[in-house]
Amino acid sequence: MPDIIEPRVLKGFRDYLPDAEQARNSLLSRLESVFRSFGFVPIDTPALEYAEILLGKGGGETDKQVYRFTDNGGREVALRFDLTVPFARFMAEHVEELYLPFRRYHMAKVWRGENTQRGRYREFMQCDFDIVGTDSASADADILLVIAQAIRALEAGKARIRVNHRALFNRFLARAGCLDKSVSILRSVDKIEKIGTGKTRELLTAEVGSGIADEILSFIEPGRDFETTLEKMASFCDKNDDEAMAAKQRLRDVYEIALAAGAAESLYLDPSITRGLDYYTGVVFETFLDDLPSIGSVCSGGRYNELAGLYTTRSLPGVGASVGLDRLLSAMEALKRPLRRDSLPRLLLANLGEAPESELHRIATALRFRGLSCEVYPEAKKLLNQYSFAQKKSIPFALLMDASSMGRQIYPLRDLERRSTREFSSLDELAEFLKATKA
Amino acid sequence: MPDIIEPRVLKGFRDYLPDAEQARNSLLSRLESVFRSFGFVPIDTPALEYAEILLGKGGGETDKQVYRFTDNGGREVALRFDLTVPFARFMAEHVEELYLPFRRYHMAKVWRGENTQRGRYREFMQCDFDIVGTDSASADADILLVIAQAIRALEAGKARIRVNHRALFNRFLARAGCLDKSVSILRSVDKIEKIGTGKTRELLTAEVGSGIADEILSFIEPGRDFETTLEKMASFCDKNDDEAMAAKQRLRDVYEIALAAGAAESLYLDPSITRGLDYYTGVVFETFLDDLPSIGSVCSGGRYNELAGLYTTRSLPGVGASVGLDRLLSAMEALKRPLRRDSLPRLLLANLGEAPESELHRIATALRFRGLSCEVYPEAKKLLNQYSFAQKKSIPFALLMDASSMGRQIYPLRDLERRSTREFSSLDELAEFLKATKA
Repeated sequence: MPDIIEPRVLKGFRDYLPDAEQARNSLLSRLESVFRSFGFVPIDTPALEYAEILLGKGGGETDKQVYRFTDNGGREVALRFDLTVPFARFMAEHVEELYLPFRRYHMAKVWRGENTQRGRYREFMQCDFDIVGTDSASADADILLVIAQAIRALEAGKARIRVNHRALFNRFLARAGCLDKSVSILRSVDKIEKIGTGKTRELLTAEVGSGIADEILSFIEPGRDFETTLEKMASFCDKNDDEAMAAKQRLRDVYEIALAAGAAESLYLDPSITRGLDYYTGVVFETFLDDLPSIGSVCSGGRYNELAGLYTTRSLPGVGASVGLDRLLSAMEALKRPLRRDSLPRLLLANLGEAPESELHRIATALRFRGLSCEVYPEAKKLLNQYSFAQKKSIPFALLMDASSMGRQIYPLRDLERRSTREFSSLDELAEFLKATKA
Repeated sequence: MPDIIEPRVLKGFRDYLPDAEQARNSLLSRLESVFRSFGFVPIDTPALEYAEILLGKGGGETDKQVYRFTDNGGREVALRFDLTVPFARFMAEHVEELYLPFRRYHMAKVWRGENTQRGRYREFMQCDFDIVGTDSASADADILLVIAQAIRALEAGKARIRVNHRALFNRFLARAGCLDKSVSILRSVDKIEKIGTGKTRELLTAEVGSGIADEILSFIEPGRDFETTLEKMASFCDKNDDEAMAAKQRLRDVYEIALAAGAAESLYLDPSITRGLDYYTGVVFETFLDDLPSIGSVCSGGRYNELAGLYTTRSLPGVGASVGLDRLLSAMEALKRPLRRDSLPRLLLANLGEAPESELHRIATALRFRGLSCEVYPEAKKLLNQYSFAQKKSIPFALLMDASSMGRQIYPLRDLERRSTREFSSLDELAEFLKATKA
């Protein structure tokens, strides 16, 4: 006998067993329906790219997080670590074959050799959606409407989409004379939920003095409603500052559209939302579930000026968001929204060893023709074994064709949870019943 | 200005632009519906695994086709090159958490550093489905029924599933006294379509002499129908050979089930089908489209005795098949079955700069609520630009809300292909019309 190799996966990598994979597929397919209903189309890019493309010239040689190697042809290659960089390369390469504005979604795996403590994985799926080629309130709003509709489609309860505008914050800092420190100020403000107001004031005071620190804290305090908050934020800026007033108008336009589309109640103007990443230039947003705010934002993003500046001189402004799939999946589980129900088979045709195999398959075929999922147990094992199989697979019903029911042309259906049996006199009736009891 | 990096993908890798990705998604989702209707459940495994797991102990060090490298933690790792080996590892690792028989499908990318001539890709998607944990005619037949139903669901015309049984061939060779040469004989027979009967006879004669060569050629000649062919094949075996007679019975049982399930007309018993791979032990099969036989088999597979012998001592017999996705996609295109229609948006809400943005989004929301996909053009560009955008995206209709239609509360719909406009007096009517004209 040959040596047995221990079956195991790499640290930070996961197998998806059917329950988990069905849940993930259901989540993705519901998201996909929403994306499509707004005209977004799917794309895909290679898992492996030139290291130079993914990491930039000369960049990344110290980045331990990237899976990078030399292929058999001597090329420096790397596994993608996000979907944003490949999308930028994709747009630069294909913009002439496409149309603008280009709405795309991309659901695919990425790889990062991260520290696997604290539930981080080295292989995980990302889900990004963007509208590229337009700098308009309509596009900004569409991204927010997609998020609101996705939360609805997932039946994940109420959600708050916290919105802000980078320029409004920056122009306020400009008026206050500390725009040069904006990056570190944004970073400190970003921590406020984690470290509290007192600690944030300390950080800010150390950087810009207590007067401006208090002004910043006052700026980021939300008002009663969207309008009030917006007016308050604008009041911190110079009224003659065109950029600030354009940002104010943009937020107002986005809110108007959300109102018209019935999504305004999910929208909160939150001046403390900044998103750490440098490349955002306009609206930014994060999404929190009312029933589970602690898991953090389940969908975040914003507007950027240049998607593909590394690869093309063509200007490609855009707005987009990234769905936190792992977070959403945990949330759905915690909220007891059993996603995988979507795709479960409904019926096991038990094999009692009395009806011919071919007869079981004839019935199964007829039921599938009527739109039902079902499967034939392939061997005449003990009935209890077959029941236990059905239970493990969450199949709620078993059809028990024996010599007697074959002869009488009836269909005895066992409800495996209630442990009761009911007879049907035709396949149509049986199919109707099973459809009506659909989970 | 920083240096621009040339946007490009690695040789043998592909971007999927929306048309291609929509076609692929439609294909996958139709296959998935069929798998589910037979009780198959999805799984997923990591793209990256220990090299030892994928290549065996000491094996594969010379295999140039495998993307293999040392990760940042010093582990020898490799990208999966098929879905069979990871599935074997998966079953060995998780069999106790699962149930048997286990029906799974797996659609995922694999990577091979192959020569990219002749349309071979280094990254491509595989789609495998198997039933593990049973050696039964019922399971063998289910795999064939899935194939027949998948061809139907894809509207790919008629297909021939060519079936054979490895044991029947082998027991015939045993009787003829040349079982020891079965591997090379099978290989020669496998080439017959490519090299012709004459050349195959030459190869066989060189191996086993002309008498047995002729007997082999006679054995692999199909008869009038399934039954006749089966009887003829059995007549080449020893009647007291239990293994041969069991194989004959298995093929007959499978055929009975296919008859009962209405799939017998796709099933052809073809004694020349052998499948090159060593691990098949029972039924083997290949699938050819009647309208496009030249593209080769679009779905092949067979029964194997041991799935996971490398990783466990537990016996896991199974039967399964692999769908040739790239071939099927080319076939669907050649047969003019435009898969991507499934997922196209139907309507562009043109932006004439007269209706408020929020009004366009209000209408779009109302139409989505009625089950339609649509998108709002985000800027008031020239109408011709918007029409050209819709055409490039294959959107057939545009809604033209201007000041007049806003005032009169009517909905002017432009048929972009026929260049005609029609007015609707309510959103319900508009939605009904668009649904009724669904591609």
